[in-house]
Amino acid sequence: MAPPPADGATAGPTQRALDAAEDRWRRAAADLDNLRKRYAREVAREREIERELVTSAFLPVLDTIDRALEHAAADPESIVEGIRTLREQALAVVSGLGYGREDEPGVPFDPARHEVVGLVDADGAGTPPGSVASVVRPGYGAPGRQLRPAAVTVAQRQES
Amino acid sequence: MAPPPADGATAGPTQRALDAAEDRWRRAAADLDNLRKRYAREVAREREIERELVTSAFLPVLDTIDRALEHAAADPESIVEGIRTLREQALAVVSGLGYGREDEPGVPFDPARHEVVGLVDADGAGTPPGSVASVVRPGYGAPGRQLRPAAVTVAQRQES
Repeated sequence: MAPPPADGATAGPTQRALDAAEDRWRRAAADLDNLRKRYAREVAREREIERELVTSAFLPVLDTIDRALEHAAADPESIVEGIRTLREQALAVVSGLGYGREDEPGVPFDPARHEVVGLVDADGAGTPPGSVASVVRPGYGAPGRQLRPAAVTVAQRQES
Repeated sequence: MAPPPADGATAGPTQRALDAAEDRWRRAAADLDNLRKRYAREVAREREIERELVTSAFLPVLDTIDRALEHAAADPESIVEGIRTLREQALAVVSGLGYGREDEPGVPFDPARHEVVGLVDADGAGTPPGSVASVVRPGYGAPGRQLRPAAVTVAQRQES
């Protein structure tokens, strides 16, 4: 692969250094190629591991659902308490994964966290214009990592 | 960085080829280093994306829990139906993520999918020795990707 030496030295020190340099380069290029292939496999595997971890975190919620159903026939009243436990458990999982719940009315409207699904009169809602009057569906996420915005109604000034 | 040419040529064709080869090698080594750093960042980001996707898949289950609680006070009976919906929804999420539920009694005991939590008499259980008599807690997983084994009691031959 090395060009024939034009300065007369058949295998002088410079030629040997050239061979060594070309060899190093070829190995670095091969390493680069191997690294690319290895990482492509690793990324797929890492995502699978994450999927397994997150799904496993939700399995106790499924267990609670199973138990709530088993007890439902025996005692329909106890099931309300069961669902309350279920909600706390599910919220603890989501919170443990790093995501908060956005369900506070009265806070200033923030387009990054809220999705407007309705407008209401500020006087009737009892909250200042431009604030969240009610949360129709809670939002979940972390700063910069929104899973979904909260669906809210926003208080506006009454047209006069 | 190149060693001084020992064969007398100050900048002959071989020397120039050597310089070019060393330059190529250094650039390949730098690419390799950059790629390593970039992939380390990407793997972290890919896991975050997967966590967001899986958690988002469970959000409708949280919504159903919220709604079930809201309706509980008005109609305690309807809540049993609500939990049944909840279970179907949660199982559909887990199944959609690629994991099945292992809750069948009567199947042959399989150490890869079952964890023994008790032994029962085969005649009393009505299932053949070596089979699963009852499932105490369902297992979840896919072939080779077990999230957790099913906790089961296993039927055994009566000591005589």
